[in-house]
Amino acid sequence: MSTRTSTARAEHQELRISELHGSLDDPALRSMDFLNEVAESYPTAISLAAGRPSEQFFDVDSVGEHLQTFQQYLADVRGFDHARITRTLFQYGAASGVINDVVAKHLSIDEGIEVEPADLVVTVGCQEAIFLVARALRTDDRDVLLAVAPTYVGLTGAARLVDMPVIPVAGGPRGVDLDDLVSTVRRCRREGNRPRACYVMPDFANPAAASMDLDTRTDLLRMAEDEDILLLEDNPYGHFHGGGARLPVLKAMDGERRVIYFGSFAKTVMPGARVGYVVADQTVVNSQGKHAPLARHLASVKSMLTVNTSPVAQGVVAGKLVSHGFSLAAANERERSFYQDNLRLVLSRLDERLSEHNPQVSWNTPSGGFFVVLTVPFVADDAELVRCAEEFGVLWTPMSHFYDSRGGERQLRISCSGVSVPDLTDGLDRLCRYVSTRVNS
Amino acid sequence: MSTRTSTARAEHQELRISELHGSLDDPALRSMDFLNEVAESYPTAISLAAGRPSEQFFDVDSVGEHLQTFQQYLADVRGFDHARITRTLFQYGAASGVINDVVAKHLSIDEGIEVEPADLVVTVGCQEAIFLVARALRTDDRDVLLAVAPTYVGLTGAARLVDMPVIPVAGGPRGVDLDDLVSTVRRCRREGNRPRACYVMPDFANPAAASMDLDTRTDLLRMAEDEDILLLEDNPYGHFHGGGARLPVLKAMDGERRVIYFGSFAKTVMPGARVGYVVADQTVVNSQGKHAPLARHLASVKSMLTVNTSPVAQGVVAGKLVSHGFSLAAANERERSFYQDNLRLVLSRLDERLSEHNPQVSWNTPSGGFFVVLTVPFVADDAELVRCAEEFGVLWTPMSHFYDSRGGERQLRISCSGVSVPDLTDGLDRLCRYVSTRVNS
Repeated sequence: MSTRTSTARAEHQELRISELHGSLDDPALRSMDFLNEVAESYPTAISLAAGRPSEQFFDVDSVGEHLQTFQQYLADVRGFDHARITRTLFQYGAASGVINDVVAKHLSIDEGIEVEPADLVVTVGCQEAIFLVARALRTDDRDVLLAVAPTYVGLTGAARLVDMPVIPVAGGPRGVDLDDLVSTVRRCRREGNRPRACYVMPDFANPAAASMDLDTRTDLLRMAEDEDILLLEDNPYGHFHGGGARLPVLKAMDGERRVIYFGSFAKTVMPGARVGYVVADQTVVNSQGKHAPLARHLASVKSMLTVNTSPVAQGVVAGKLVSHGFSLAAANERERSFYQDNLRLVLSRLDERLSEHNPQVSWNTPSGGFFVVLTVPFVADDAELVRCAEEFGVLWTPMSHFYDSRGGERQLRISCSGVSVPDLTDGLDRLCRYVSTRVNS
Repeated sequence: MSTRTSTARAEHQELRISELHGSLDDPALRSMDFLNEVAESYPTAISLAAGRPSEQFFDVDSVGEHLQTFQQYLADVRGFDHARITRTLFQYGAASGVINDVVAKHLSIDEGIEVEPADLVVTVGCQEAIFLVARALRTDDRDVLLAVAPTYVGLTGAARLVDMPVIPVAGGPRGVDLDDLVSTVRRCRREGNRPRACYVMPDFANPAAASMDLDTRTDLLRMAEDEDILLLEDNPYGHFHGGGARLPVLKAMDGERRVIYFGSFAKTVMPGARVGYVVADQTVVNSQGKHAPLARHLASVKSMLTVNTSPVAQGVVAGKLVSHGFSLAAANERERSFYQDNLRLVLSRLDERLSEHNPQVSWNTPSGGFFVVLTVPFVADDAELVRCAEEFGVLWTPMSHFYDSRGGERQLRISCSGVSVPDLTDGLDRLCRYVSTRVNS
């Protein structure tokens, strides 16, 4: 196993990458490393790359306040005494979570999703939830996942960890190309594979910044039923909408329980809690004929992965929810307003500075979320990103990183969430200068 | 994929367990469920089953205090301003962790392990660390892990999640039977498999309550080198020793970097933080010939599993370490004393009440840790546990749960960590009455 020199033992143990699991040398995982390295190499560049929430809303005192609120909730609503409250926060706890009732109330109030607390598992961020489902659905090498391309890197990465191929489905203006989805499902089956589920982000998708209209949502659910696949719905950005009535999430329209729903508190509470969840109310029939929600099985897998999600971190999230009547919408009014203003600033600046290059340069106009996708007449790859960082002092993300093989070569993702207004203004100026220079060169 | 009734569509989506990954119906995972169910069914029974830390040391105010200490540390030692401190705690952060320097100092002071912060990854409890290593080492179905039997269930469970067989190695009085280890490695190779590593717990192992003497540790390291395997050293109980000089952990004796070391703060700080770590200072050579510590690759895998460990939770752990001069030994003087007293109480009660049944009934006499193993002349299986809970009101763990196939049928694990002295006294009385009744029946 070890690589040794011919004359003597190596000074210490060396492993070749080929002796380790394929995911360790996978482009999907290396892609994140590369983007982080660029950011570290150009610390003074303005980053329109990372889809991070704004830090202006972080408050160190909030941890204690939210924990206090959750403790009061445990006393008032669950009738816990001091010893039981302490045990709930500090001891080992249920793998499925300790705030499931609070999350279920939030889902009812904010999303119109009606589920039992036992139908969900609280996870270490949404990423662990995605991994749990990928792990559960992959039984052997015939199982595959579908995903609308371009795809969130975390989905691709989680699938890699269980050796599960991710087959791209075209996105297009409706957020998912249903004809392509049907033909992909059928092609997979003809090839002897089992398409288990399709991963979608119907609201302000990362990275395409596309959303599905109501008809598409209805058609997608019917198609999932007709073609007998599950839908994996991920919704990190739905709360950062453009105002007025939101469209229902798929899970709220899901009478047949075709949808496994992923939720994240990273953008609506804080990334540092690392708390997300999965709603999996599908029934699993075991070998003795007994029924249990899929969530219960996912919790068993989780018990061998991370045991349980930090109840201290869960308490911080629950406290914030409780103090806003279980509503993330209520808790994120300032945040929504900030991200909306930033998004409008991006769109108006692009309009002012780049419309002269139309139609060579174009961009989409999402009504919410953190992202805008810019299409340019040149290859916007990693080398271009480094050049732009070096010469113009601004960072963005090559869209090719979100495609498994080819795709997105002439597109870049702009994120407007994690920067202050002055930095965003300055960064957009730099970006537009860079694009104009490249177009004119 | 779905199971439908013959006359109409099922009311909602049903999945058969056979359509899901084998781990979901695995005995190792169901074993935890069963033990939890018994505990829930007999809530008034005294539990000598769970290896949980005592709750008397939990203090709700400590979260805020430890976080404050860590913030001061970031300001004083790293020179961070308020904005950067807030970002460190609340924003997305490095997958490898944000308290690695603090953990490295603790390892130097408490364990004599000298590593760079970059050689370790802070994980969501030790369980995630075990999973990351299992994932990395399993490239295809020829890779196998070895583990001293009886084995910690979390190792077996993590291996299941990556479809990696765990081959048992005899333990015996030295904590590991080196002859059996060598012959098992060689047998695996003859069968065309690749034994990658052997999992060991040299100090007060869970569940066998055995420890390795210094000669065994030295021999084990030499054997790992000669047979070219890695050692996975797990050390959750080392701080709860019997006083005097501790034996060095394997990692402190590991000049050849054969040892991947797992650490846990669940018993020394609190389970509720869910913070552990892995030291992986082995060099990995990638396909371009570049070198990086294995820890860096494990962090890449982690980025697709849980993104990063909650920095709030990391801050709580680091704060406790900083406030005790980076020493867990200093931070756990009261705890060590409590667990030692409880352990001595177990051993003296067994002596008083069960020595009349010698040699039919026997037990080991560990000098530290949370556990004692009792050998009885009857089969102590799940049915016996339920009967004992029902009739005698005391819970323990059938040792057979820690064997993959056969083994431990006439043994039970007693845990003394999570109970008060009056409950422990009462629970031991009940247990001894149960054992005497069964022996005399």
